[in-house]
Amino acid sequence: MDIAAVNALPYEDFVNIFGNVVEKCPIITAAVWSRRPFVNFTALEAAISEFIDGLPESGKEGILRCHPDLAGRDLHGGTLTRESREEQAGAGMDALNSVEASNMARLNEEYKERFGFPFVICARMTDKVNILRQLSERCRNERSVERARGIEEVKKICRVRLQALVVGEASNKL
Amino acid sequence: MDIAAVNALPYEDFVNIFGNVVEKCPIITAAVWSRRPFVNFTALEAAISEFIDGLPESGKEGILRCHPDLAGRDLHGGTLTRESREEQAGAGMDALNSVEASNMARLNEEYKERFGFPFVICARMTDKVNILRQLSERCRNERSVERARGIEEVKKICRVRLQALVVGEASNKL
Repeated sequence: MDIAAVNALPYEDFVNIFGNVVEKCPIITAAVWSRRPFVNFTALEAAISEFIDGLPESGKEGILRCHPDLAGRDLHGGTLTRESREEQAGAGMDALNSVEASNMARLNEEYKERFGFPFVICARMTDKVNILRQLSERCRNERSVERARGIEEVKKICRVRLQALVVGEASNKL
Repeated sequence: MDIAAVNALPYEDFVNIFGNVVEKCPIITAAVWSRRPFVNFTALEAAISEFIDGLPESGKEGILRCHPDLAGRDLHGGTLTRESREEQAGAGMDALNSVEASNMARLNEEYKERFGFPFVICARMTDKVNILRQLSERCRNERSVERARGIEEVKKICRVRLQALVVGEASNKL
């Protein structure tokens, strides 16, 4: 699909295709449809990023709270979105040994208790050893730092998901 | 559930319970969790309303675009959210005669073509005759008027959905 085809999509198709590039936040995709036409995929990605940046801090926390835990109950219960399931599996979250699983569960709880939102990381760009290390380190950050860091990761996840939907185009244009 | 119990909910439970009070926009519920504690349900409703009002116009259009058509393909395909299905059925949207169904389909398309978002109305507070009349009338509005009108209806739907979740409490406090 080239950018002209994207720009020609009615909002319903646009939201159906791109609605989960930010996890469980189709409102964001649906909002940036108002910004058409996009000159290229970078412009689409930038519009999403700008919309996120324009939200109040509570809205950014809201985005983070729409994300599942890594190796958490949605993974075990089969209720992850397709995108999350593939990303978590790709980073080995569905194949932790018992020590890793126990550490992950403990650190996820500690993180959520401290910040009031879940640990978010772009699983596609890393692996389970690094995820556990970063989770452990980021638990010690200040809340505002960690909120901004989580949103950075949301944007990385968004980029990866956009690229998967627009193979070829995105890698040329980014 | 009284307001003390609501205020004690971890964000995951809060979003699970209240996440669809604005259709397919759990980010809004997830964001207002930051505003706890709420003194009563009116305060919770007000926090949601203020969050919506603080969004840019594109964000308000995004909310509208997360709503299904009335008597549209999600109703016929069985892909409505539980709340929407019950509301549409309550207003007779699943029992239109062929003339009504044809008028509804034509007017929905005309509305979306004109405004770039769907016709939104609080179906719980009306019936099929009034819905068809209002859809026909509102097609003639200016875009900005209709965007604001749609958001008013979103807030009515939100109130009805909140009341259903907190029976007794809400009617005492509103």
